[in-house]
Amino acid sequence: MSIKTNPGNYFEDFTLGKKIIHATPRTVTEGDVSLYTALYGFRFPAQSSDEFARTMGFSRAPLEDFLAFHMVFGKTVPDVSLNAIANLGYAGGCFGAPIYPGDTVKTTSTVIGVKENSDGKTGTVYVRSVGVNQHDEMVLDYRRWVMVRKKDKTNPAPETVVPDLPKAVAIEDFIIPEGITNKGYDTDLAGSPHLWDDYKAGEKIDHVDAMTLEEADHMTATRLYQNTAKVHFNQHTEKDGRFGKRIIYGGHIISMARSLSFNGLANAFKVVAINGGRHVAPSFAGDTIYAWSEVLDKMELPSRSDFGALRIRTVAAKDQACDGFPHKNEDGKYNPAVVLDFDYTVLMPRR
Amino acid sequence: MSIKTNPGNYFEDFTLGKKIIHATPRTVTEGDVSLYTALYGFRFPAQSSDEFARTMGFSRAPLEDFLAFHMVFGKTVPDVSLNAIANLGYAGGCFGAPIYPGDTVKTTSTVIGVKENSDGKTGTVYVRSVGVNQHDEMVLDYRRWVMVRKKDKTNPAPETVVPDLPKAVAIEDFIIPEGITNKGYDTDLAGSPHLWDDYKAGEKIDHVDAMTLEEADHMTATRLYQNTAKVHFNQHTEKDGRFGKRIIYGGHIISMARSLSFNGLANAFKVVAINGGRHVAPSFAGDTIYAWSEVLDKMELPSRSDFGALRIRTVAAKDQACDGFPHKNEDGKYNPAVVLDFDYTVLMPRR
Amino acid sequence: MSIKTNPGNYFEDFTLGKKIIHATPRTVTEGDVSLYTALYGFRFPAQSSDEFARTMGFSRAPLEDFLAFHMVFGKTVPDVSLNAIANLGYAGGCFGAPIYPGDTVKTTSTVIGVKENSDGKTGTVYVRSVGVNQHDEMVLDYRRWVMVRKKDKTNPAPETVVPDLPKAVAIEDFIIPEGITNKGYDTDLAGSPHLWDDYKAGEKIDHVDAMTLEEADHMTATRLYQNTAKVHFNQHTEKDGRFGKRIIYGGHIISMARSLSFNGLANAFKVVAINGGRHVAPSFAGDTIYAWSEVLDKMELPSRSDFGALRIRTVAAKDQACDGFPHKNEDGKYNPAVVLDFDYTVLMPRR
Repeated sequence: MSIKTNPGNYFEDFTLGKKIIHATPRTVTEGDVSLYTALYGFRFPAQSSDEFARTMGFSRAPLEDFLAFHMVFGKTVPDVSLNAIANLGYAGGCFGAPIYPGDTVKTTSTVIGVKENSDGKTGTVYVRSVGVNQHDEMVLDYRRWVMVRKKDKTNPAPETVVPDLPKAVAIEDFIIPEGITNKGYDTDLAGSPHLWDDYKAGEKIDHVDAMTLEEADHMTATRLYQNTAKVHFNQHTEKDGRFGKRIIYGGHIISMARSLSFNGLANAFKVVAINGGRHVAPSFAGDTIYAWSEVLDKMELPSRSDFGALRIRTVAAKDQACDGFPHKNEDGKYNPAVVLDFDYTVLMPRR
Repeated sequence: MSIKTNPGNYFEDFTLGKKIIHATPRTVTEGDVSLYTALYGFRFPAQSSDEFARTMGFSRAPLEDFLAFHMVFGKTVPDVSLNAIANLGYAGGCFGAPIYPGDTVKTTSTVIGVKENSDGKTGTVYVRSVGVNQHDEMVLDYRRWVMVRKKDKTNPAPETVVPDLPKAVAIEDFIIPEGITNKGYDTDLAGSPHLWDDYKAGEKIDHVDAMTLEEADHMTATRLYQNTAKVHFNQHTEKDGRFGKRIIYGGHIISMARSLSFNGLANAFKVVAINGGRHVAPSFAGDTIYAWSEVLDKMELPSRSDFGALRIRTVAAKDQACDGFPHKNEDGKYNPAVVLDFDYTVLMPRR
Repeated sequence: MSIKTNPGNYFEDFTLGKKIIHATPRTVTEGDVSLYTALYGFRFPAQSSDEFARTMGFSRAPLEDFLAFHMVFGKTVPDVSLNAIANLGYAGGCFGAPIYPGDTVKTTSTVIGVKENSDGKTGTVYVRSVGVNQHDEMVLDYRRWVMVRKKDKTNPAPETVVPDLPKAVAIEDFIIPEGITNKGYDTDLAGSPHLWDDYKAGEKIDHVDAMTLEEADHMTATRLYQNTAKVHFNQHTEKDGRFGKRIIYGGHIISMARSLSFNGLANAFKVVAINGGRHVAPSFAGDTIYAWSEVLDKMELPSRSDFGALRIRTVAAKDQACDGFPHKNEDGKYNPAVVLDFDYTVLMPRR
């Protein structure tokens, strides 16, 4: 008779090169899509309308890419971050085959780096997680690193290995869905006349709208993604925790910011890369999330003139309108209102 | 580089005859239906059971008509009522082709009337909005009027045009779904033995049940409909607004009242017309909604004896049971508990 | 003109042998499954993944059995327990044909016992409720008993009939889904290496995780199941009720406990029987639910060596971690933290 519950992995459990098969493959459905719309007010047309998606060459409306992200990410939590103190960063995230309702997603992670902290109590673990569909096609491949507790301070430190992480995903690594076309792309139905040609590097956009966070909403989202991190769900322990309340899953804020970004980036119909991202501060029920974006880079795609890419920084702030584009103060520290600083790359039709 | 965010339209932007194509066509799914059931406890059998619906001649369970309404209405918000001060009324609403899961809905509006207010700061805009499915079949055609801010008080007033609006949709304008039949209609499964024959004009029905409103619920509903009106979502600004809190989308109350009306109108399987409606007072999270109905009229349908129509007034009240049928007081003013006074027409099987 | 609203049944209405056809047949969909995942964080793989389910011999992912239970149970509420004072117990519950998205469920109940209480104001009613799918195959057959108000104290008491209820469903009454197999069962994907062989009668498992209850969540769940009991929904009356707040549907706690039990019972892929159950104390929004389980019995299945059965007691407690396995105190009274004591039988693959 052994202990039947999963205690999660500790720093010592993450040996370099270790492969983890995560539990609970997940068939994603139209029900998940409806919930995503209902949780964030998602309005991008390719993900909202089968008709619109087919006009673009998709077989039907694909899942929004960050919903795909959450489905792939959620599975990693019980094995990677159950004993994590902090989710430190993301890099090198590439979206692959679009996910359609009916597809089944599962995730595997590989330990690509370990670095014990000087206090001997914690360490940083770098993992590469790959989500695949039922045809074993990659749907998302990304790196993240987390700070994890050691089981025992007296255990010897492993050799430090810090992987070489790209600042941004390179153009040649973007995976453009096969067969997509901008012919017949209808900017009236899409909600904005502004196409790739109209954006400039350095341009800042205030997304104007805002959304107040509720406990029921963020828990519903996080459960939908089968993300099990305790801090999101257990008020009985969190009341005595660092903040006295449940901490909202950072991915909930990413999806909210992306949904708010429709007002200004309506034609950014696809995320191709996650370059990096930082959950600058925690969010809680009752906070109202605003967002703004900056065009960091504007890229032509190799040998195609129908779509272009924009590297975007989307910043989410709480309880502060974003017409002043809050980011970092002069001392390099983040404005205290900022909760998310996210760097990703989207596709947009060209004229 | 232009402003990329949608500022919404102001009174001056609504010129008579102007046509607006609203963004984000929407494929409605079984997921939306489940959420609707979960939001309101909707229990009418034709919309709950494919088997029951097929017995009646539908190809499967169609969407509840007010869910169809919200899907069509939601799209109009960013263009019609983003700068609205008040949603003043509805008229001449006809439901057309039933919407089934998998159908894609989009909406177009035409400005049919404008009337500047005497203060020169606001005006009333009348629009006719038409929702169609992917076959370009009309699913809903209705008029509403809203009070909208002017951009600039000094702009000259347009010529006043107030459209002629019917007090009620005429019998000959009802669209009865093709092929429906009352043969095999099972009143046990439907939940009530009372058919069209059993109702009388003037009859009042207390729907008895009640439902308390929650912030997460009304925001979830309103986001599902992709309705973007800021007052429903942003506590950060609303705390300093007129009521100090978020205002619930009026349509949420319509759907709640319709769902409560099952207890007394269980065989009212289809809404054919919206004759008029007034959101008498705002509702907020924490309010408990009760409802009662009055049969305003009882109509035979031309050349068919299997179904009849009932014109219904459903009144929703907050924090007050409806056994006293609260409506207007002797001075003609609404009882302060009333939040909704809604006039619509339903179909019901005959004996 | 008659009263159109359903007043529910009183004790006198339940005559022995009476059969009740419950309203609103319900087509269950992928949308319902997504909501269930989002409400409870359900992670069992056979219900989460069509691919995993097919490997086991299901045609696709079936509905989790307790979701099936709620769908069948919900229909009985308007007729059986609208005037109930207490839901006293369950027994003899057998799950039959798996329910798949697209199936339509309806429920019929038969009165199998009546016993008036000595005060003449109330009585206990025993019903056997049977849910069937669109092919008239039984999906769930169970007994429950409730305490119901009498309409009139002066009405004579019926002859007392108390049905003989089994303490536990017998092995020969388990219905094993046709064609299921443990070949290719993947314990990595399932989330635990512990199979039937590894469990012992008497073994206790702390499920560790916990979930805080929200008003929006429990009402959403209860509405999804079309359960109409007023105490769950009406804060306006409940504020003056026994607890001053809405009481959470007991079944919501069953599903939460079952979902938490994944951490320790991940391979319990199917519930075959409900042996008994008691809602020991009410739960409210704000409570945090923990759970633990005890293996009450370990059973081989007749003529098959691929799966075995475990009779499980799952106990849910509020605002108290379950590492101490809270249950009854020495005086035989329940620990005040306990809200649910549930006895059911699951299937698990063998080595």
